[in-house]
Amino acid sequence: MQVQKLYVNSQRLQETIEHFAAFGRTKNQGVTRLSLAQEDIAARDYFCSCCAEIGMHIKFDDMGTIYATMDGTENIPPVAMGSHLDSVTKGGRFDGVLGVIAGLEIARTLVDHQIKPRHPLTIINFTNEEGARFEPSMMASGVLSGKFDKATMLMKRDIDGVTFDDALTASGYLGSMDNRLTAAAAYLELHIEQGPVLENEALSIGVVDCVVGMVCYEIEVTGESNHAGTTPMHVRKDAFFAAQDMMVALRGKLNELDPELVYTMGRVHVFPNIHTVIPNKTIFTLEARHKNEDVIREVEAIIGNLPNLQAGCGVKKTKLWSRNTVWFDDGICKLVEQSTQLLGYSSKRMASGAGHDAQFVAGFLPSAMIFVPSTQGKSHCEEEYTSYEDCEKGVNVLLQTVISLIS
Amino acid sequence: MQVQKLYVNSQRLQETIEHFAAFGRTKNQGVTRLSLAQEDIAARDYFCSCCAEIGMHIKFDDMGTIYATMDGTENIPPVAMGSHLDSVTKGGRFDGVLGVIAGLEIARTLVDHQIKPRHPLTIINFTNEEGARFEPSMMASGVLSGKFDKATMLMKRDIDGVTFDDALTASGYLGSMDNRLTAAAAYLELHIEQGPVLENEALSIGVVDCVVGMVCYEIEVTGESNHAGTTPMHVRKDAFFAAQDMMVALRGKLNELDPELVYTMGRVHVFPNIHTVIPNKTIFTLEARHKNEDVIREVEAIIGNLPNLQAGCGVKKTKLWSRNTVWFDDGICKLVEQSTQLLGYSSKRMASGAGHDAQFVAGFLPSAMIFVPSTQGKSHCEEEYTSYEDCEKGVNVLLQTVISLIS
Repeated sequence: MQVQKLYVNSQRLQETIEHFAAFGRTKNQGVTRLSLAQEDIAARDYFCSCCAEIGMHIKFDDMGTIYATMDGTENIPPVAMGSHLDSVTKGGRFDGVLGVIAGLEIARTLVDHQIKPRHPLTIINFTNEEGARFEPSMMASGVLSGKFDKATMLMKRDIDGVTFDDALTASGYLGSMDNRLTAAAAYLELHIEQGPVLENEALSIGVVDCVVGMVCYEIEVTGESNHAGTTPMHVRKDAFFAAQDMMVALRGKLNELDPELVYTMGRVHVFPNIHTVIPNKTIFTLEARHKNEDVIREVEAIIGNLPNLQAGCGVKKTKLWSRNTVWFDDGICKLVEQSTQLLGYSSKRMASGAGHDAQFVAGFLPSAMIFVPSTQGKSHCEEEYTSYEDCEKGVNVLLQTVISLIS
Repeated sequence: MQVQKLYVNSQRLQETIEHFAAFGRTKNQGVTRLSLAQEDIAARDYFCSCCAEIGMHIKFDDMGTIYATMDGTENIPPVAMGSHLDSVTKGGRFDGVLGVIAGLEIARTLVDHQIKPRHPLTIINFTNEEGARFEPSMMASGVLSGKFDKATMLMKRDIDGVTFDDALTASGYLGSMDNRLTAAAAYLELHIEQGPVLENEALSIGVVDCVVGMVCYEIEVTGESNHAGTTPMHVRKDAFFAAQDMMVALRGKLNELDPELVYTMGRVHVFPNIHTVIPNKTIFTLEARHKNEDVIREVEAIIGNLPNLQAGCGVKKTKLWSRNTVWFDDGICKLVEQSTQLLGYSSKRMASGAGHDAQFVAGFLPSAMIFVPSTQGKSHCEEEYTSYEDCEKGVNVLLQTVISLIS
């Protein structure tokens, strides 16, 4: 059959992005829109009013997640899409909100073209994806998917001591558990890449087939503190020197694994951290991510094979956590690829190195994600930027895929 | 001429050490005797009463330093010896106080043997050597020697906001500038080594001929922060990885210099220090000490030759401070050596890696130091330990040297 090409309204999409960027705008054109804070509530209110304006039904679930639904011609599970309106402190104008705006623009486009979907169409705004106000991140999708305990989450507090429960009640967005999304034909999430791959390869669209698995270890090296002036080098048990050697050796081994492996030693503490005292302890994290779990196992083997004694210092390795790679639905990924090809946009299959609500939703619904380029790979900062043209291409791909799914 | 061998009273010395250890004793048998705090004042009072008891005259100078003097048979400059009664928080029972107790025991021994010295004999307790309550360390000897500005020192505050000036006035130990020591035939300081060299080489006495010079740099490596999950390894500018490589390379080069060089990277800060974020900055100190200034210059050349760009990260080197090696008086060192030989104690010439009041006094008076072993090199901690036998040997060497000088 001849597939119809449809495009969203470029001008309206840009205006909507700009409109949402005003909720929590920072002086450097970023946004601070912490979950259920005043700025987030304002963005939610505006989103709901836009959806209501085109005749969508709005519901909230017991974690404050918003579902805006356009009726289908049949009473069957909806096609869902969405992301999150909250941001980190001094975050950007695209992370999360783009996926929600995309849903709105698609619904508006269907209305423009008087397309009546067979499946209902649901736009989702997940509460507290960032975890910037209430840890952990992806809180509401975690509860929805059964990964997080709701009662525990409700008692999480922000730095002012306000519980999530109280913030949710006060926001006016506390709804019923009955409104949770439990069935859908598909869940699709458009998001900025938050990495430099698409930009570096001059591609417009990332067809995201997985969220990479990861493992995080804490490695503690224990030596002996002594006076930096009076202790000859050969009798020292310097926990930082030992750690340096271990870190460089680790990197050498990790660099021999698959080139797509990413790893970071992001947190380091040296004790007592006084310039005239030989360090007696160094603690550092090693976090590694790769889609192939065999590679992650190789990383764990390398860490496991670290000596227990390095230059006279004791070495302790503690696995802080790990998560398996979440694979998205291959059928939906293929649909996204077809949409991309139909529209003539350059694309590649890729993994997401960051976590997203879609990875939890994928546990119980056929899901996939679509990435658009992030300039210089920056995100979670005010400089975060994706051109309107790239945003529009992403929304068009989502629209085309949704049309296939709802028809 | 036939030199007389004289020994101190072993039992009395031990009792005196134990008596002083009670001033500020901690539950783990260390001491907390911060400068001009109640415990320090109690120790000072006791010291003064002991000196007065054997007919010594007590004076304080304008920095609270105590001078207890036994008259000589001639009106000539005194032979001085001493150290400090203050300690760090949870310090040991020997650092500093041993040198003051030694002076007292020597004066008592002279009285026992009815020896009338030709030179007056002065025991000095320098105020605030540790700098643990009021920075900097060696405060009073620094002012005495003209290295520190008195007005600036008086305004130094402890963590409760009390100025040194107020603490000194309240202590009752504020004396006159006229009482400062300005001339002496010699200044001798007995101290624990605070390092493991004497113990490791099974020696009883260190004849200290210098306090080593040192240099301290801060090295700042600046890269780019990015998401740990989404940024491929080859596009990262990881400031901690770059710093690791630089630190290991630095150590390789420094290890090729003189084996007596000691160096430490004691203070390290990684930013933003979050396990999921690639570090954009690493700042570390490199402090190096050696008695030979040519070696210190070689260290500086190695630091100076560090690249300004390492793995895409900027490198900035800042010299925080340096101090030249302070050489003690060779004639006095030889006298100490002769005393050691006379008494049949094993010894070697050595450098002090730590700072001491004697290094400032050496700027205007012929000075030297005597070290006794520190078990496992430990100091500035409750485990600090020197056996009574080793203490006694050190005091005997000091006595023998003083006898040569006062005769």
